[in-house]
Amino acid sequence: MILTVTLNTALDLTYGVPELVPHASHRVSDMSERPGGKGLNVARVLSALGHETVVTGFAGGSTGAVLRELLAGPSPLEADPRAASVPAPAPITDALVTVAGNTRRTIAVVDRATGDTTQLNEPGPLVSADEWTALLGRYEELLAGADAVALCGSLPPGIHVGAYAELVRAARAAGVPVLLDTSGEPLRRGIAARPDLIKPNADELAQLTGSREPMRATRDARRRGAHGVVASLGPDGMLAVTPDGSWQAAPPAKVLGNPTGAGDSAVAGLLSGLVEGLSWPDRLRRAVALSTATVLAPTAGDFDRAAYEELLPRVGVEEHTPAAR
Amino acid sequence: MILTVTLNTALDLTYGVPELVPHASHRVSDMSERPGGKGLNVARVLSALGHETVVTGFAGGSTGAVLRELLAGPSPLEADPRAASVPAPAPITDALVTVAGNTRRTIAVVDRATGDTTQLNEPGPLVSADEWTALLGRYEELLAGADAVALCGSLPPGIHVGAYAELVRAARAAGVPVLLDTSGEPLRRGIAARPDLIKPNADELAQLTGSREPMRATRDARRRGAHGVVASLGPDGMLAVTPDGSWQAAPPAKVLGNPTGAGDSAVAGLLSGLVEGLSWPDRLRRAVALSTATVLAPTAGDFDRAAYEELLPRVGVEEHTPAAR
Repeated sequence: MILTVTLNTALDLTYGVPELVPHASHRVSDMSERPGGKGLNVARVLSALGHETVVTGFAGGSTGAVLRELLAGPSPLEADPRAASVPAPAPITDALVTVAGNTRRTIAVVDRATGDTTQLNEPGPLVSADEWTALLGRYEELLAGADAVALCGSLPPGIHVGAYAELVRAARAAGVPVLLDTSGEPLRRGIAARPDLIKPNADELAQLTGSREPMRATRDARRRGAHGVVASLGPDGMLAVTPDGSWQAAPPAKVLGNPTGAGDSAVAGLLSGLVEGLSWPDRLRRAVALSTATVLAPTAGDFDRAAYEELLPRVGVEEHTPAAR
Repeated sequence: MILTVTLNTALDLTYGVPELVPHASHRVSDMSERPGGKGLNVARVLSALGHETVVTGFAGGSTGAVLRELLAGPSPLEADPRAASVPAPAPITDALVTVAGNTRRTIAVVDRATGDTTQLNEPGPLVSADEWTALLGRYEELLAGADAVALCGSLPPGIHVGAYAELVRAARAAGVPVLLDTSGEPLRRGIAARPDLIKPNADELAQLTGSREPMRATRDARRRGAHGVVASLGPDGMLAVTPDGSWQAAPPAKVLGNPTGAGDSAVAGLLSGLVEGLSWPDRLRRAVALSTATVLAPTAGDFDRAAYEELLPRVGVEEHTPAAR
């Protein structure tokens, strides 16, 4: 079982409008809602890859109730007849901790004229010290049955900035490989607790290290405590610097589409590859193919299965020579 | 008891953002949620004026449940110590009909830098023929105990455009004075059923009659079937053309503020005045003072009680000579 932790889950609403005009009134022409927050997105992709997944984190109030109902419903990533070799979705188990506050909503307003998205994110519920203690207890129980854990996304109000460092230490104490995917100060603190892997994008890496040169920044992130770093470089693919070597992986061609969720698909690719005992090059192939197939999918955050299967053997992986390490 | 009908109720969310930038990501800095839809707003003001009110219309799904919870909670218009002569809020009774679909959300994104609002309105649930029949039954039961009824706002998907005409006819058959406050084709059809009063604003009146000249347009609206017309002219006050005479009412000075809900407060003023047997000039004084005090209130849709009491005796009302009728 793979465990994902989402401390600031969200009900993700997408509103289509013919054209977004500031200070005007808009009738929403089409809308959808789905469970969100990075760890829930990672779980959805893991499930589609056939991995049994348990999600924890916080959910509360009426919005939390809707989120959990949707989570219990059928996966939007149903079997695609074009991709028969991909296994059927595996169950996602809801092990979220109920909180008194209301889970946040995020609203993506999509301008149907241009395809551009304007994002509005509620801050999330104020989590109490008792609720955090309850989460820690639930997390330690779940670690006992986990093959790997992903710690994902922002912190809700009330959660101390060193929260991820605590969760990383507990995973390491339990001997469970831990991937940390967050940003800013929670990432800086979390890295110091020595996670097995971090997956920053170029902006997060620059914020952490002060450098926009990928190899330099990635090495700096390792010096700060991360055992392995997989930097996502957007359309240029990924750079992995690990105790076993360094690789650069890139899709066969640049693609156009919506990058929402591409990073979460990459996390699912890396984590599933780790649990399956794949080599680093194969893990990176999967992560790059999944995130590229996510950019190509018509629905933000889903991945296009057929595109994934077509891309997988065509992702280029190049090993850096030891001198370049 | 005064009855208000809101066929397309809404959960009104207000999101404050430091500055709204299209195609950027925003963290909501402050937020509030309240039951909405014009008839619910009218009921809140009637309640604050001490009138027992019953609300009907449709509510459903998780958003409908939140709306009904908030409706059952304490009124946001609590007694203001500065305005001791205003009676305590009277109860608002929830007689909404439950539907299978999800009640809509409306989102007002307020740019805290400029105060400008960008509005996003979900369309509302698809209402079935059986649900409409259930509403008609509930409405006829409630009419038996009503002193007056207000029919307010837009129609949800699935409701036929002549719905308000049907509701107007039922009220008139029951001998209950009926005020219709809607726009477009539902207003045009509703007027033909001869409501006692309509309260269009200048835009709605122009859309109905093709004229932007208030006296001409108001007379035209009466010829189309409305017994009385009170046209709201924004900061210029109101023009009333009724079987009993014609009056123009205006606030003592133009005020700056948020006009959201000013029209609903005017409806509450007119309807409460009718039920209390006030003269037309006194009804108009109340309607103008309430809507001006709504523009002045810090929270959109509430009214400032102290301002209301100060304004009430200072609203100017001028009778049009019979020749001008």
